[in-house]
Amino acid sequence: MTEKRISSAVIKRLPRYYRYLSELLEKGIDRISSQELSRTMNVTASQIRQDFNNFGGFGQQGYGYNVAVLREEIGKILGLDKKYNVIILGAGNLGQALANYGGFSKRGFIVSGIFDVNPDKIGQKIGTVQVRHMSELQNFFENNKVDIAALTLPKAKAPEVANELVALGVCAFWNFAATDLNLPAHVVVENVHLAESLMRLSYNIANLDKK
Amino acid sequence: MTEKRISSAVIKRLPRYYRYLSELLEKGIDRISSQELSRTMNVTASQIRQDFNNFGGFGQQGYGYNVAVLREEIGKILGLDKKYNVIILGAGNLGQALANYGGFSKRGFIVSGIFDVNPDKIGQKIGTVQVRHMSELQNFFENNKVDIAALTLPKAKAPEVANELVALGVCAFWNFAATDLNLPAHVVVENVHLAESLMRLSYNIANLDKK
Repeated sequence: MTEKRISSAVIKRLPRYYRYLSELLEKGIDRISSQELSRTMNVTASQIRQDFNNFGGFGQQGYGYNVAVLREEIGKILGLDKKYNVIILGAGNLGQALANYGGFSKRGFIVSGIFDVNPDKIGQKIGTVQVRHMSELQNFFENNKVDIAALTLPKAKAPEVANELVALGVCAFWNFAATDLNLPAHVVVENVHLAESLMRLSYNIANLDKK
Repeated sequence: MTEKRISSAVIKRLPRYYRYLSELLEKGIDRISSQELSRTMNVTASQIRQDFNNFGGFGQQGYGYNVAVLREEIGKILGLDKKYNVIILGAGNLGQALANYGGFSKRGFIVSGIFDVNPDKIGQKIGTVQVRHMSELQNFFENNKVDIAALTLPKAKAPEVANELVALGVCAFWNFAATDLNLPAHVVVENVHLAESLMRLSYNIANLDKK
């Protein structure tokens, strides 16, 4: 079912569908029509039908969508049927926020290591994980599988640490440092550039009166 | 110069241009050709010229772009020539990370208030700002101008607090809560949905071998 190439525009919408379907399940709603989903999500019903047709439809005429089935199938496409070991580089507030957010482990993203260079932080527990010194990285990799590295460290440090992690075998980065990483083509990077997000907001504020 | 409507695709790229131009200035580079900028940013030179032509060009034949002038002009379009008073709702790790990040105040986003309901947090200082109880919001608004509200609170609380803030006059939200806010049309919302970002990463990991 996931063999077919799905367009990146559809892929971009899948996490939002997944989030809405999860909310419906939490509310005990087990089926929904594309019209209802359309109203809830503020997307046209035909867009929803088109998107879901990309990977097999799931809907039944006159019944609508089975929320649990649809959520599970979208979850599979998003790779959420697997577990991911995550390490966090940088134990500052942002690193701690990621480590403490229960929603991630619920979806299979397990924080197995947190690293910093600040001696005050080494040995501290964040959630159930003790902060290690960055110099222990290599040793850690000898004994642990790492799927994702979250970079919550200053932009000046990020490229160097990212290169070290690639050499240790990391193929996926969740990058919060305010810089673009130039990494080999086999590595995937998801950037969260908060300063750019804030600039988009100020642009929209500056253009509010033209709305 | 900003009177002309600029397409949203161009707008999306402006914060990234702004970030690169800021980095160049920090490095003491005061002019750059579209070819050099293209190499640094991994965008085609013709894309750069097209984008900049949207708002007047700025380039000079045989000279390239004056980095400081270009950065300032893009800054103006992004509304970065103004100051914004920001309040943060939720003094957890994420709220603290935003409050402590020096890069925001440097760009004119000044955190003037932090609010929470947790008695352990009220009165604590984060940076230079003392955490206030959420019940003091109305009083705070009587004495302070608020341009942006950053929501770093649980999704269950976010819609209620957002509605209260809209009633108090807030027109711009930076929303980190994992839910979409249904707010009046005059209000602008910039969402940072971290869980969705992580799902895009896991999708890309799941499809790594097809790369």
